[in-house]
Amino acid sequence: MLLFPGFELLDVFGPLEMFGALPDAYRLAMIAERAGPIDSRQGPKAVADLALAEAESYDVLLIPGGRGTRREVGNEPLIDCLRRLAESSGLVATICTGAALLARTGLIDGRKATTNKASFRWVMAQGPDVLWQPHARWVADGKYYTSSGVSAGMDMALALIASLSGRETAEQVATYAEYHWNSNPSDDPFSARYDLGSAARET
Amino acid sequence: MLLFPGFELLDVFGPLEMFGALPDAYRLAMIAERAGPIDSRQGPKAVADLALAEAESYDVLLIPGGRGTRREVGNEPLIDCLRRLAESSGLVATICTGAALLARTGLIDGRKATTNKASFRWVMAQGPDVLWQPHARWVADGKYYTSSGVSAGMDMALALIASLSGRETAEQVATYAEYHWNSNPSDDPFSARYDLGSAARET
Repeated sequence: MLLFPGFELLDVFGPLEMFGALPDAYRLAMIAERAGPIDSRQGPKAVADLALAEAESYDVLLIPGGRGTRREVGNEPLIDCLRRLAESSGLVATICTGAALLARTGLIDGRKATTNKASFRWVMAQGPDVLWQPHARWVADGKYYTSSGVSAGMDMALALIASLSGRETAEQVATYAEYHWNSNPSDDPFSARYDLGSAARET
Repeated sequence: MLLFPGFELLDVFGPLEMFGALPDAYRLAMIAERAGPIDSRQGPKAVADLALAEAESYDVLLIPGGRGTRREVGNEPLIDCLRRLAESSGLVATICTGAALLARTGLIDGRKATTNKASFRWVMAQGPDVLWQPHARWVADGKYYTSSGVSAGMDMALALIASLSGRETAEQVATYAEYHWNSNPSDDPFSARYDLGSAARET
């Protein structure tokens, strides 16, 4: 899981709750430009164990959103590290406006993707050649998964677990977390609150 | 929010996502026996800003669960600090097996409370005089709120926000987080998976 100053708490810890509940636990690694404590958007700090430049490759690379993405889209060394890491990792998944960082790598040009509906136009501008989907809880296109806002990251994480370890395991994780899994990627009750039909036509 | 080694990630960061989304943001304070980085049950560390002995009182005191509760129920200095802090705080809310720590303070004896359904009997044993409710997403009794497992903490947090700032604000926070709020405290789809009718009769 990538961290940067201004990451959104639930974007990070919702998916990690799900991966951390797997019977054969994945090792969870927290990475950032520099190792050490990192401020969330809400204030509480999490600790990055490893600097991004030292990170190698992962079964699943997770990229959260949060206000900090507004700054990090212009951080070329970070985007370069992310591109290298995303290319060498098995699956790459973004939560919320984390899609803006992945879009800046160029790796999802020509691919379908989604993001937070409240910030949709800003994220679209970070990747004009991405096929942005305005009505989706999450989208999978090849090894790239992108989810809608905040809580959608938990639904996508369970879908990633289903694809890696089977549907039954994903259901067990949801039950462990007493989480009502929205397992249908097309069921996006929040997109209807915004006028995104026109945003999609703009692409 | 209390932290201790072995806290459950989503117990902590689900509710903090909701409180951190309030338009008039609450200041979120992370407290633990000693300030500094604290290991979660899943591995990733969060940072405690303040030692418990220095904490004064809060509008809302939140107590998470996680495997670490098995050790902390026997940590008398921690339970004594928690009792003092809970008495002086406006609202006190537990997530998952955090109810075991609150039960050990004696402050919810004779009050209704609930907890994680998978660990129900162990938590009950930490407070034999608590009126444990086996079928509840969360329970409010006076200033004490207790929620069921992990994700239930988010539903309870939104109920706390509704009681502090109005239902409309809670709905706005849920929409911001793209979270499907289960706002009915009696809607507990997970309790049916366990035979807790008999557990309740044991009280």
